Amino acid sequence: MPTRHFDLAITGGTLMTLSSDMDIIENASIGISGSRIALVDTNCTLAADRVIDARGGLILPGLVNTHTHLPMVCFRGLADDLPLMDWLNHHIFPMEARFVNKQMVRDGAMLAIAEMILSGTTTCCDGYFFENQIAEAALAGGMRAVAAQGFADSATPDHPQYEKMMAAAGRFVERWLPHAPMITPAFFCHSPYTCSPRTLVNVKAAAREAGILYLTHLLENRDEIDTIEKRYGRKPVQHLHHLDVLDDRTVAVHCNWMSPEDIALFADLGVSVSHNPASSMKLAAGVAPVPLMLEKGIAVGLGTDGSASNNDLDLFQEMDLSAKVHKATLLDPTVMSAETVLKMATIEGARVLGMDRLIGSVEVGKQADIIILDMNQPHLTPLYNPYSQIVYAARGGDVKTSIIDGKPVMENRRLLTMDLPAVMERVRAIAAHIQSEHQSAIRTSPVDV
Amino acid sequence: MPTRHFDLAITGGTLMTLSSDMDIIENASIGISGSRIALVDTNCTLAADRVIDARGGLILPGLVNTHTHLPMVCFRGLADDLPLMDWLNHHIFPMEARFVNKQMVRDGAMLAIAEMILSGTTTCCDGYFFENQIAEAALAGGMRAVAAQGFADSATPDHPQYEKMMAAAGRFVERWLPHAPMITPAFFCHSPYTCSPRTLVNVKAAAREAGILYLTHLLENRDEIDTIEKRYGRKPVQHLHHLDVLDDRTVAVHCNWMSPEDIALFADLGVSVSHNPASSMKLAAGVAPVPLMLEKGIAVGLGTDGSASNNDLDLFQEMDLSAKVHKATLLDPTVMSAETVLKMATIEGARVLGMDRLIGSVEVGKQADIIILDMNQPHLTPLYNPYSQIVYAARGGDVKTSIIDGKPVMENRRLLTMDLPAVMERVRAIAAHIQSEHQSAIRTSPVDV
Repeated sequence: MPTRHFDLAITGGTLMTLSSDMDIIENASIGISGSRIALVDTNCTLAADRVIDARGGLILPGLVNTHTHLPMVCFRGLADDLPLMDWLNHHIFPMEARFVNKQMVRDGAMLAIAEMILSGTTTCCDGYFFENQIAEAALAGGMRAVAAQGFADSATPDHPQYEKMMAAAGRFVERWLPHAPMITPAFFCHSPYTCSPRTLVNVKAAAREAGILYLTHLLENRDEIDTIEKRYGRKPVQHLHHLDVLDDRTVAVHCNWMSPEDIALFADLGVSVSHNPASSMKLAAGVAPVPLMLEKGIAVGLGTDGSASNNDLDLFQEMDLSAKVHKATLLDPTVMSAETVLKMATIEGARVLGMDRLIGSVEVGKQADIIILDMNQPHLTPLYNPYSQIVYAARGGDVKTSIIDGKPVMENRRLLTMDLPAVMERVRAIAAHIQSEHQSAIRTSPVDV
Repeated sequence: MPTRHFDLAITGGTLMTLSSDMDIIENASIGISGSRIALVDTNCTLAADRVIDARGGLILPGLVNTHTHLPMVCFRGLADDLPLMDWLNHHIFPMEARFVNKQMVRDGAMLAIAEMILSGTTTCCDGYFFENQIAEAALAGGMRAVAAQGFADSATPDHPQYEKMMAAAGRFVERWLPHAPMITPAFFCHSPYTCSPRTLVNVKAAAREAGILYLTHLLENRDEIDTIEKRYGRKPVQHLHHLDVLDDRTVAVHCNWMSPEDIALFADLGVSVSHNPASSMKLAAGVAPVPLMLEKGIAVGLGTDGSASNNDLDLFQEMDLSAKVHKATLLDPTVMSAETVLKMATIEGARVLGMDRLIGSVEVGKQADIIILDMNQPHLTPLYNPYSQIVYAARGGDVKTSIIDGKPVMENRRLLTMDLPAVMERVRAIAAHIQSEHQSAIRTSPVDV
């Protein structure tokens, strides 16, 4: 029998498969052919072009960030400890109107991709403007991405006119669909309060036609309920349901103020949810009823949101927060176990993005998105329960090696896909410009939603 | 004029002094003589035996961990996602009864000290058993510590008899007082539900006589109110006040269920509070009314609690959680600003421990406890607001250099005070023993409070 030869192999280490039976394999042997996992076994010697020694490490599927706005790293820490609507209307929206352009989006996205790879994320779902730039940055940086072109009714930085926006969206999908599943195009309506019914409906129709994902912020803030009810006579979820934009290819982001009826409707329709605890806590937007959503079978993934409201892109922190904030607010330490939370950051996140047959676990046939944690550190010693250790003690900086689509993108904490000092320098230059104009930009803001 | 010569100097970098006027000094120059800060200036060339180049870094006073149980690193991740009393009575207390001994305390403390130094803590306040061992470990590891000998009425691992416990406490204080302010002895009554009035009163009397700090867990869990009221006819704070153990040398730990009356009494008496958000969130014990306590002028510091309920000793995570959890639960994003939280982790923590004239800020005359953060990293780029960056984006792993009492204890992330692999190996051996007996230990538990 001829020996099987792999392009890349990982040997040694403890593999948390995140498969449906949550197999944990000691002294794992993983063979990768091209972009896919071709073999998962234990205690084998594998023939491969390259072998990564994972002894003493914990091997996991790469983490899935179901919601972010990558270029917002350029606004990280610019305006904090403010109410959501003040933050949006008097800082973020005016700064975006003034400073968001192709170059800023591209440079910011590259920095964000560096940060995500360095903290164990291998797939992100971005929603922003100039989304072509983000898809290009992801391709260049080696990051798997769902790139969702943003829509809003106010003039957006990339498309001041509605008709041009819709036409460009069609070209965007055509351009990127051939790159799936590395880059998957999608559409992102900012919210029911910034998008008219016409926009919400037209964008969903286009998404359905293209067979792509449709995302929207929903029920981030409690005020949204009154705003939408006053404007349309229905509460937000009912408003979207009435417009027929909720289905199993819709991802609702935040969902902090879901009623039991909203949850039942989501479960019926198969709508997925992106839970962003750090951002919602920092903005005091609310705490999503995640344990109840999970109980009803809704797919819930984790997201970091943009760096302006977090202020980082580390999904390990998101796991820790998600495990803790629901315990704290429900006064029940048994909700949101470490295992549940790790699933949300991996296989359930993949399910939210409709990609659970492709990524989210380490199993034969899946794309090879794999991270290795260095467990030989004081804060990860001793090791009784790997789920606890990952969720409650590990940090993004503990990820030593990262493989996306079969290619190593980080080894021994060194990024392999970009010139990191140059990327940081470009963002610092953008920030110097933003800082010098921040005050005047706020004063002359034309935006108030 | 002769040039002044220092033992150690730090030059370059941005210094966050945490002085009363919150000075921020660019291109800082810090001269250290012996264990103290002798000069704080800007843009000087300093003559010193050793000069640490901090250019591009952020220089801060070392962080102050106001509450922890160091040896509990040995139980990290052993029993998670359980109710507090189940966790305590059926896991932690029986495991402690069986496995806590001098060697475990010493080895666990060394690992915890490594973890703390590597994440920017320069002072900790520990409360446990065999506290001599912890003080020795702190001295050996170069960590400034308030070492508080633990008391409880049930048999404790170190002192099965009450009289011996009290006598040993006196010897403990005598032994360690000469080591202040590097090692400062204190007493720690576990809680009003595990300590009888006699113990609470006797220990406080001894603490007063020795002029040392007195600590106790208080109002961690809501059930404690009923338990104490049933047993003594008073609510916990009133119970302790009636016993006259509350004063400005008392630190109450957790305080999750403080009423407005309790808060007013603490403010009147000058009682300090240690806030441990990660632990209280994970155990679903409650969320302390910290914004209200701060408003009333109570000194509130941050603590990690033990690693069994956190599960790490990283005060950067504690800062992030503290800034976020109160915003989330009060639905007010303006409470607990990044600046407020950084104060709690430094100068206010020092005030809680009665050491604010010695540590907690970088000012001439204070002990030289200083950390330097490496800001040249993607998740810390760009930098608009250092307070935001420290609290919301930085992690313990970003601390590059740490100086305690004028001595470098970590440089370029390398620990200088111990053989770290050997320390980790010893704790792994202890953990292997604990794991093998965990189940039987639980079954035969004699402890149920």
